[in-house]
Amino acid sequence: MEFFEVVHTQRAIRRLDPDPIPDDVLRQILEAAVCAPSGGNRQGWRFLVIRDATLRRRIGDLYRDAWYNDLLKVPYYRDASQAPADSDRAKVVSSSRHLADHIGEAPVLILACLETEGMSAGLTQGASIYPAVQNILLAARALGLGTTLTTIHRFRDREIKTLLGIPDNVETAALIPLGYPLGKFGRAPRKPLAEVAYLDRWGQATGW
Amino acid sequence: MEFFEVVHTQRAIRRLDPDPIPDDVLRQILEAAVCAPSGGNRQGWRFLVIRDATLRRRIGDLYRDAWYNDLLKVPYYRDASQAPADSDRAKVVSSSRHLADHIGEAPVLILACLETEGMSAGLTQGASIYPAVQNILLAARALGLGTTLTTIHRFRDREIKTLLGIPDNVETAALIPLGYPLGKFGRAPRKPLAEVAYLDRWGQATGW
Repeated sequence: MEFFEVVHTQRAIRRLDPDPIPDDVLRQILEAAVCAPSGGNRQGWRFLVIRDATLRRRIGDLYRDAWYNDLLKVPYYRDASQAPADSDRAKVVSSSRHLADHIGEAPVLILACLETEGMSAGLTQGASIYPAVQNILLAARALGLGTTLTTIHRFRDREIKTLLGIPDNVETAALIPLGYPLGKFGRAPRKPLAEVAYLDRWGQATGW
Repeated sequence: MEFFEVVHTQRAIRRLDPDPIPDDVLRQILEAAVCAPSGGNRQGWRFLVIRDATLRRRIGDLYRDAWYNDLLKVPYYRDASQAPADSDRAKVVSSSRHLADHIGEAPVLILACLETEGMSAGLTQGASIYPAVQNILLAARALGLGTTLTTIHRFRDREIKTLLGIPDNVETAALIPLGYPLGKFGRAPRKPLAEVAYLDRWGQATGW
């Protein structure tokens, strides 16, 4: 596929077919992941590909519990869950709830992790893992697979690390369910560029 | 360009031509940026496109000062700067030093920012800005422009925010110099997939 077509039509797909994904496709997706940059080219990323049905079901149970009992206490999501049903915010919550109810049924979950080497993991450590996560989302879309990026598993981080044998000096940065899409690819709702791009000084219009 | 060719040949390009970049190219790059996901689709990203020569020079001075006086005190970089000259680590440091000496000469700097809405910005807030940053790096490569992702400006965060009028509730997540490349695109050195991808449990080989 042409590069900009992939970028412009990649969007969160939270309704996934349970059909399995061939090894070769998973390999292509992870080979795209490791082309991303990382701080000092340290490549502290580790990608845990979870295909075992029992593990997926247990992660799904933890995720669902976190979604209903923790996420909905966050003011932004609590408010969004009460927004008019046809608003963009309410649609995101509804789709996110569907994912919470079914994430364990996705044929593959990729848990993108970062070895922190004992450093505290602040915002900028994200520069060493989320570019690779974005390459996963884009490569999956190029190969016809649906994904979304979620961090809600972090409400049950301790349990998930124990379940999967993840060491303490590793952060679980993103959970990515993968599957053939039941939803459609296409442009997601976004603010106009003029609202988010400035020229030279904060708040100054670009004029283009 | 074909999607996987872009992904596989995008790499840090730290030697840049000072020739200007057309508005239309910058617009295409930022339109790719905002296709990325963000938590709850909040789109708290703001992209400050810095083209003014005086501002670029002042940012360049701050960046160079941070590189020599702060970055080289970080053990990883101090060690890397003393590694054998033909090692991958030493090459990254040498290229990074060139960038530090010349970043203000890049025709455009993009400062990717994140409005945090008063939340503390930890690792997972990176999931709302670095996917967009990766789209910038990839779109630039698709359009023949060199870039790299750096966070070294954060050593002079206060001064840079004052210079550009950036509010306190905004994080400066990445600085991206853009220009036509003097270096070559191509595959950057990476660990083999077998070292960074596991199946079902931490440390377990995928077999593919």
